Amino acid sequence: MSKEITSRAQDYSQWYNDLVLKGSLADYSAVRGCMVIKPYGFALWENMRDVLDRMFKETGHQNAYFPLFIPKSLFEAEEKNAEGFAKECAVVTHYRLKTDPNNKGKLIVDPEAKLEEELVVRPTSEAIIWNTYKGWIQSYRDLPILVNQWANVVRWEMRTRLFLRTAEFLWQEGHTAHATKEEAVEETVKMLDVYADFVENWMAVPVIKGVKTPNERFAGAEDTYCIEAMMQDGKALQAGTSHFLGQNFAKAFDVKFSDKNNKLEYVWATSWGVSTRLIGALVMAHSDDDGLILPPRIAPIQVVIVPIYKGEEQKAKIDERVHQLVAELKGMGVTVKYDDNDNTRPGWKFAEYEMKGVPVRVALGLRDLENNVAEIARRDTKEKNSVSLDGLSAHIKQLLEDIQQNIFNKAKQYRDEHITPANNWDEFVGLLDGKGGFISAHWDGTAETEDKIKELTKATIRCIPLNNVQEEGVCILTGKPSSQRVLFARAY
Amino acid sequence: MSKEITSRAQDYSQWYNDLVLKGSLADYSAVRGCMVIKPYGFALWENMRDVLDRMFKETGHQNAYFPLFIPKSLFEAEEKNAEGFAKECAVVTHYRLKTDPNNKGKLIVDPEAKLEEELVVRPTSEAIIWNTYKGWIQSYRDLPILVNQWANVVRWEMRTRLFLRTAEFLWQEGHTAHATKEEAVEETVKMLDVYADFVENWMAVPVIKGVKTPNERFAGAEDTYCIEAMMQDGKALQAGTSHFLGQNFAKAFDVKFSDKNNKLEYVWATSWGVSTRLIGALVMAHSDDDGLILPPRIAPIQVVIVPIYKGEEQKAKIDERVHQLVAELKGMGVTVKYDDNDNTRPGWKFAEYEMKGVPVRVALGLRDLENNVAEIARRDTKEKNSVSLDGLSAHIKQLLEDIQQNIFNKAKQYRDEHITPANNWDEFVGLLDGKGGFISAHWDGTAETEDKIKELTKATIRCIPLNNVQEEGVCILTGKPSSQRVLFARAY
Repeated sequence: MSKEITSRAQDYSQWYNDLVLKGSLADYSAVRGCMVIKPYGFALWENMRDVLDRMFKETGHQNAYFPLFIPKSLFEAEEKNAEGFAKECAVVTHYRLKTDPNNKGKLIVDPEAKLEEELVVRPTSEAIIWNTYKGWIQSYRDLPILVNQWANVVRWEMRTRLFLRTAEFLWQEGHTAHATKEEAVEETVKMLDVYADFVENWMAVPVIKGVKTPNERFAGAEDTYCIEAMMQDGKALQAGTSHFLGQNFAKAFDVKFSDKNNKLEYVWATSWGVSTRLIGALVMAHSDDDGLILPPRIAPIQVVIVPIYKGEEQKAKIDERVHQLVAELKGMGVTVKYDDNDNTRPGWKFAEYEMKGVPVRVALGLRDLENNVAEIARRDTKEKNSVSLDGLSAHIKQLLEDIQQNIFNKAKQYRDEHITPANNWDEFVGLLDGKGGFISAHWDGTAETEDKIKELTKATIRCIPLNNVQEEGVCILTGKPSSQRVLFARAY
Repeated sequence: MSKEITSRAQDYSQWYNDLVLKGSLADYSAVRGCMVIKPYGFALWENMRDVLDRMFKETGHQNAYFPLFIPKSLFEAEEKNAEGFAKECAVVTHYRLKTDPNNKGKLIVDPEAKLEEELVVRPTSEAIIWNTYKGWIQSYRDLPILVNQWANVVRWEMRTRLFLRTAEFLWQEGHTAHATKEEAVEETVKMLDVYADFVENWMAVPVIKGVKTPNERFAGAEDTYCIEAMMQDGKALQAGTSHFLGQNFAKAFDVKFSDKNNKLEYVWATSWGVSTRLIGALVMAHSDDDGLILPPRIAPIQVVIVPIYKGEEQKAKIDERVHQLVAELKGMGVTVKYDDNDNTRPGWKFAEYEMKGVPVRVALGLRDLENNVAEIARRDTKEKNSVSLDGLSAHIKQLLEDIQQNIFNKAKQYRDEHITPANNWDEFVGLLDGKGGFISAHWDGTAETEDKIKELTKATIRCIPLNNVQEEGVCILTGKPSSQRVLFARAY
């Protein structure tokens, strides 16, 4: 089975698609640019979602749900702030189909069911939410509003890739309202920290926290904070963003509150989101040419047990010992699957769970049982060891933690090795076309230079790292003076 | 605050709207027929969803996610089975907005971005899912597929009501595929039982399990099983449906599998769903003229504690004791809120939590503390008691269980008293216009008679109860012979 995967060296992009499809994470659908998230992929997303949701609630947020559709006129209100906002949206113009009178069995859009005002399928929900907050906020007592929404959104992308860029995707979007600028900025940074914590400690993907340049900001934001991750092909991936929106949306939707002195003020806002795109990052950060490698803390199956036997009598003996092990592991909170399906052979199962990235595989045969051992294989390093059945569950529990740490360390080492300074244009281009990764370089601080560099090399400024070292230098393109290096990369 | 609620006697429909809005469950939105589910209402939905999701997983189901959009042509394939399927859908015809060249600041649909094939926002997902299953099913080894999806769906309803009938709503839809008819029927009934278990034991709403008449069946189903609940105004509400779809969708989308004898067969299907409509049922089954009454097992806040004090010194003493109580209750798995917000007075808080249906309220003042007691008020009966602080958390834990049971018993008694036999047309009409509720009456078994009764009285056959008593009789409308009574009611 593993032979069917294209290797990274051969075609990185095809390798990625192979993993997503053959690892049973997702499938193409009949709808252009939309994917089906398969049960295994969705279980992974559920684990990620549940951890994030807990983190949001622990930081005082509540979930709510706002309409899928946004009347076109609300976009016009927002447009005043956000001229650059993407207009590639799915637009609902009619509310009824009817049988085609000229073609039996076919349906047509009923021309008599045209909407007075077109509805846009939400690409993000600032407009509908701030339009709603207007009714919820009168006084400082109504603030802060700390709300998150788990939802599907649609952006009509021309080139789509499973998880990384799909027309419809799942995400969460936090939308908070505050009485002061300080509080809103604090919230923006707090949620960036939550994202970094989640991506590093659960997904085992190291990230760099930073702020975007004005060019790369979310339209309507005063500041966009981000976490940037590095993939194995040397390309960066933006893993999450947290926006300080200032009073822009409050002004667009006329949301004011009376402060403690009874003075009317515009409300301060933030928004922040991560999406199913994170699954793409996860796949590309860790996996190898034999399949997925999933971090234990979010893997849908942490341990798979495969029995090796001939005949029912042997099976019964193995079953007995395995049921004990399964009960012990479950008691420790470990997600375990006993795959005793007799339609497939052990070798097929080994390849299948390797493909699916299950962190630990236990194989148990009659001979092992007699020797009081099991064969333990870890997915990340592919090491196999014969381990005593006594205390095996505790051993596995520890092994899962070791694997989590090892996956992170490996990704971090790769990432750290792929932050390279460039001091002039030739170095810069050489690095981009060669080693790849983040390139730390001086930039003159202008949007024009940033655009020119992007045009020439397809590299963008991923971020200005938080607490960036201040250092005198000259811009790699223009030679103009610069006070700090920023991180460039080609990116997903 | 409670004075602002319209009473049930005065205007039942307005009472319902008042509760939903003032109980902070939901709000109207800027989009016709779509609502905003507010944090308190969404926390209730999350509790319901989490219990159901666990039940689905315990019965072997996995979640997945399918596209929001369904190409029109897939509906045409389905139409062959389901001519009666509602065509009132949101239709996406374009994928881009652009700035109006003649009207600065306004947006128009870009006529150059017209889709080749229109996309329908899913009203239900059988079509896209069976189109996908075609690629997943080759052999009996690929069956069963036991998949559920939590999603938003859209049906363009002309008259909408918060939760009960909205253009967009949240639901879950199970879609299973089986090798045999027997297995599919078994699944259909199993999921009906799961729904009945959930609605009765968690929502405390008694239901009658039954099957729909052909008239009331889901288009494309061979049999529709349902659970029917009774509201306080004597109207019925369909709380969940489970459909045995036969081979209809497999035939429409050409989904065959090779059985153990290598023979190609069409796959058997079920689908089943419940939605945010259940929140409407919950509100209408239990609440009173002072606000919501929520069953403890799914209430977002089970216990609220209100301190009664003057000055910081008193507050500090009460705080100390309350923090201990909160810790004890949390340790018992009770969801508790300590509302020591000093912007509002105790009386305002009492009314607020009464409105929100919090099952147990604890009030604690300095005098209580000195007497080693607290005032405990239960929302369902409005009883207030002074209870010793010793063992208070255990008392509250038990009280929550008593309230759960009492709410169910009360709703069941009302429901049982509102199942009335009618033996002729005058009795039938008299009951409908008077007492309301379910009317158990003979019907001649024809769609024509059912239609006529609906036309004359707005009553429909809610279901033929499972294991219905067989009894000779004559149809209340036509006088033709009948072998069993069925349950009629006016319904939401």
